[in-house]
Order: sequence, then C-alpha cells, then structure tokens
Amino acid sequence: MPIHKVSVIGSGNWGSAIAKIVAENTAENSEIFDTDVRMWVFEELVGGKKLTEIINTQHENVKYLPGIKLPSNVVAVPDLLDAVKDADLLVFNVPHQFLPRICSQLKGKVPPTVRAVSCIKGVEVSGDGITIIANYISKELGIYCGALSGANLAPEVAQEKFSETTIAYKVPNPNDTIDARVVRALFHRPYFHVNVVDDVAGVSLCGALKNIVALASGFVDGMEWGDNAKAAIIRRGLLEMTKFGREFFPECKAATFTEESCGVADVITSCSGGRNHKLGAAMIKSNRPIFELEDELLKGQKAQGVTTAQEVHEFLERRDKLEDFPLFTAVHDIIFKGMDSYALPQILEDVEQKF
Amino acid sequence: MPIHKVSVIGSGNWGSAIAKIVAENTAENSEIFDTDVRMWVFEELVGGKKLTEIINTQHENVKYLPGIKLPSNVVAVPDLLDAVKDADLLVFNVPHQFLPRICSQLKGKVPPTVRAVSCIKGVEVSGDGITIIANYISKELGIYCGALSGANLAPEVAQEKFSETTIAYKVPNPNDTIDARVVRALFHRPYFHVNVVDDVAGVSLCGALKNIVALASGFVDGMEWGDNAKAAIIRRGLLEMTKFGREFFPECKAATFTEESCGVADVITSCSGGRNHKLGAAMIKSNRPIFELEDELLKGQKAQGVTTAQEVHEFLERRDKLEDFPLFTAVHDIIFKGMDSYALPQILEDVEQKF
Repeated sequence: MPIHKVSVIGSGNWGSAIAKIVAENTAENSEIFDTDVRMWVFEELVGGKKLTEIINTQHENVKYLPGIKLPSNVVAVPDLLDAVKDADLLVFNVPHQFLPRICSQLKGKVPPTVRAVSCIKGVEVSGDGITIIANYISKELGIYCGALSGANLAPEVAQEKFSETTIAYKVPNPNDTIDARVVRALFHRPYFHVNVVDDVAGVSLCGALKNIVALASGFVDGMEWGDNAKAAIIRRGLLEMTKFGREFFPECKAATFTEESCGVADVITSCSGGRNHKLGAAMIKSNRPIFELEDELLKGQKAQGVTTAQEVHEFLERRDKLEDFPLFTAVHDIIFKGMDSYALPQILEDVEQKF
Repeated sequence: MPIHKVSVIGSGNWGSAIAKIVAENTAENSEIFDTDVRMWVFEELVGGKKLTEIINTQHENVKYLPGIKLPSNVVAVPDLLDAVKDADLLVFNVPHQFLPRICSQLKGKVPPTVRAVSCIKGVEVSGDGITIIANYISKELGIYCGALSGANLAPEVAQEKFSETTIAYKVPNPNDTIDARVVRALFHRPYFHVNVVDDVAGVSLCGALKNIVALASGFVDGMEWGDNAKAAIIRRGLLEMTKFGREFFPECKAATFTEESCGVADVITSCSGGRNHKLGAAMIKSNRPIFELEDELLKGQKAQGVTTAQEVHEFLERRDKLEDFPLFTAVHDIIFKGMDSYALPQILEDVEQKF
C-alpha cells in the first residue's frame, strides 16, 4: 500500500484536537501514513510571536487549545498551498464561514485523486435548497469528501476523555487505496471510537438539525418542566430530524439518526449543555429576545441553532411542509414570532397517532 | 359501543398518578367508559384513619402521593375482589414482588373477556428464561394484557408536567370493543401523550434493561468523564438493549427501542437521575460495595438495575452470549467482580467495526 500524506486545514480548538488525534495515528501506523501531519494555521501574533512558530517549538496551540500538548509530528504551516502540497488526504476543520475563501484558494491546485474528510458540522440551508458542506468541498475542488460528526465537545476530546464519532465515507472509486479501513485508522483512538458509515447526507444533517432540538430542550429547562418533558422533546426532535433527512435526501438512512454517535448521542450531548441549549433556557427564563442574550451570554460566538431554525423554516415553508415538522416550526415561532412555549404539548399533539 | 368499567390495581405513587389520569379520561369520555374508577388500595392506617377512607373523602393519597388532588371519581376499595368486580379493563400498577399474590387471589375470578394493561415495568429474568410481566398476568388470569412504559417519573406526571409514554397493546380478538383507540383514550392526556404500538415484549424489555444502562451512565459520571462519554454509553446501551430484544424475542421491533418513549426517552431520563444512576456514580466515587450504598442512599428502596444486571448476566452466560453484550457484561463485572470501570472504552472497542 502507498504511504498517504495527511494535511489538516484549520487549527481552532476542534481543528487542533483533530490534528492531535490524526498525528497520534500517523505516528503509530507508518505502514499506511506519512508520520508528519501538516496543519494549516491562519497566522497571527500571540504575545509578539507567530502562532505557527509557537506550535512548532512548544507543541501547543496556546491560543485555541491551551494546556494540551500536540504531538511533535504536527507541523504548523502558515501558507495554505504549502500546507496541502502533495497531500493525499485533506481534513477540513475550519469555521464554516471561512470555507468559501479556502476553497477558492485551493481550486485547481488539488489533484482529483486527493480525498477529504470534513469535520465542519452541518449543512447550508436556504429556501432554495440544502447544501451539504462535504458536497460543497467536493464540488469546489473536484475531489471526494466524506464527513465526520459525533458527540464530540472539543475540550473533552482534547483531554482524551472517552467519546465516539461517526464518519461518513463511501469509497468513490473501487481502486482507491484510501478506503473505510484507512479512514478509520486515521481517526480511531482508544479514547475516540470511530464508526464508519456511508451516509454523508445523514451525518451532515444531524450536525445541523440537532441545534434546533437543543434550543427546544433549552426552552423545556427554562420552563422547568423536568426530566420526562426533556426526554420527550429530545425524542420528538430526533424523529423530526430523521423525517427531514428521509424526506429531502431519500438516500439518508434512519439508523444514522437513531443509532449513530452523530445522531442520538450528539443530540443528547447538545441538549445537556452547549450554546443552543443555554440560550434557549435563558430566553424563556428572562423573557427577552434571543439576539440580545446571544451577545451577552456567548460573547461574540454564534448559536448556530437560531440561524438553522430560520433557514429550515424558510425551506419547509416554500415546500408547504411546515405542518409535518411541528417541533422545528414551533422553535422558529417561539424565537421569531413570540409564540408561547407553553403551547408545545398542544402543538405536538396535533400530529400524533390518530385512529 | 358498550360502556367499559375500569379498575386500577395498586395505589403507590405511580399507581395513584395513573388512577388520576384514567379517572380524568373516564369522566371526559362517558360514551366509552363508566365514570367511576375503582382503585384497589392495600389498606393501612394513616394517623389512625383508614387510607381508603382518606382517599375517598379528601381525594388525596396522603401517604404515597401527597399534595396531589385525585379526581373525585377515583374510588378507593380495600378488597381486591370488590375492586375488580364487573370490570372490563384492569390496570395493574403494583410493585412487581406483590404480583404473584395478587394474581393468585384473582385467578378464576376474572372472565376471559376482560382486558388488562400492566404499568409494572420490566421483566423477570432468570438463567432459565425471561418472563414478560404482562405475559405472566395473561397466563395467570387467562386474559390478554398489554404493557405501558415510558419516560415517566411519577411525581412529574402527577404534577401534570408534560411527558410521553408508550403502550403496547395488540387487540387479541378482532371483535373486541377494547381496541388501541379505546386504550389510548383511557391514558392519553394533554400533558401525557400516548403512542400505541403492538410490541409487548419490546416495551417490557426496555423498562428492565434501561436500568443496566443507567448504572453504566452512573459509573461514567462517577469517573467524571464528561458529556461525550455519557452520550456514548447511552448510545451503546440502547444498541445492546435492541440487540438483546431482537436476539431473544424475534418479534421485537428495533424502533420500539430507538424511537419510542419507552426506549430512547426512558433511557435518557434514567441516565440523568434516578436510583440506578445515582448508585452507579456513588459506587465509583466512594469505591465501596454497591449493596452498602444501596442501603444508605435509597433508604430501603431497591435499585432494580443491580438485580437485572445479575439476572441478565446469568441468562447470557448460560447461552454463551456474554461477548455479544460487552456493556451489560461490564456493568455486571464492575459491580460483582471488582472490574476496573476505567476499562470500559477498551471493552467496548473489542466489538466495534472491523474490516
């Protein structure tokens, strides 16, 4: 088997945690991978020193993942084209708003035999349609791209606390040497268990839609409705996510949502903490607009669920499908139309079992 | 349609909460049900007065569900045979250890046209086999019995906080007037949503096996492994529950476990609080035997999961199937064989995706 060269594009907390994992695995699997893992770092000065230099000498991303030692075979590279030169496998892990610019820089510079995995959660939804981020990368660069998503709060993964993840990777060419086994070998660790499936759309949709469910579970906690109600909302949310996937991406598998880490497990994690849950709870408790609270509570970060709820609503409205997704619709209406969150049980009842 | 007479057998906190629900529904559906709901109460003296008299005059079960008003059409009856006389539908809701005696008293006294729903969670497992409680009632009394189970902490249900439940009820005779619609009408409330399925074995197994998963999630919290790990254990637990059901009860449906309130939702609730979770966490934190802690923490109550873990282990061992259920086996070995809980990721890894 040829030796594969791997580059990680992105170096935030999740990007650095993933680079750490990948580099641990390339070091242990020299029959499959080149040991060195290049990590593209958006260059900035930290205490007067270049961040790439700090990473390459101190082996720590002091700005975005402080306190975590990176393996010495993670090589920070400030130039994007240098970072990906001769790579066989690209791991994308940047905030999704930076992706168009990165792709435009890479366009035409990456051979079509290169393979990629996107760790960028989610999808781009508009009234017109849904773009799976992995598919966007594929289309822009002319290479196959899979997707990684799971119940993976980055700080816990960086600290090597046990977790699981799901990778959607469907070998595009039967002669490829990069197959599901190689992809698993690149990401699987004793503390980070990987399951490879072939449902790129399902894995990607989970990462986006779960944020709407997390807002709803925040509302329930804000109303202090207890554990039964919260579990009910999680369950209903998971079923609406599955229905959404199956309806608009017929190749999606229900099991991706109900059985994989990217589905049921990530929904559970997102509904126990996380930005969207926190914001949903704060909105109900304070009875203030969510946008004010977002600025206050998240200190400049965005709660993806609010945007996703709005985009999914527009998408469903254009297709006259709002009634089939009462929880998604209610989350939108509670945030944007001042709907009373206490009406949730009544709204959910309207679509339940009839005889 | 004939008017159906309903009796509830049992008056603990869950029994009283269910009697409240049932009586609210019989009062609102006089075209289907006789308004009065008889509730069998094991007679005892509370402050010198008979509990049945207190319930029938103050409309409150001051001993087992204090602070909750019961509808005045709940009629407490101290004699078991009086309580079920002429009833068409029996709702069983007693601690499961009392069931054999109750059934032996009722044997031969209940016409075969009577129908029943068991709200007693779980199954009886021994090395020899598994007895579904609803099926035990069926067999002892010669009547059909369905099962109700869900993410239903009794105090929250009694306070009318929103929750969902699952009822397994498969009409035994096509001429029956008590069908899924009637059963749903008896239990469904604006705050207690019912989904009727036909998988009695699946619903019953969920109620028992989830307690093993709750212990495991307690271990994770005891080790302070964080949200990712907890979601991973819940996911793996849910998959083992499903596998167990499908393997030993081929009529079980996977969706009962992964999509219904009795499955995924009840597992989530049981893993966020509840006796088994609490006990599992305390055991790891204190490094003391679970039986000592059970006495201390639960004040005489039992954590069902410990018994279930032991019974399921014996059942699997006899069939040489321990390796197929690594989480169930690990929970048993951590409690009974002093296995190190930190080995959980390694144990789970052994049965993961291979290529």
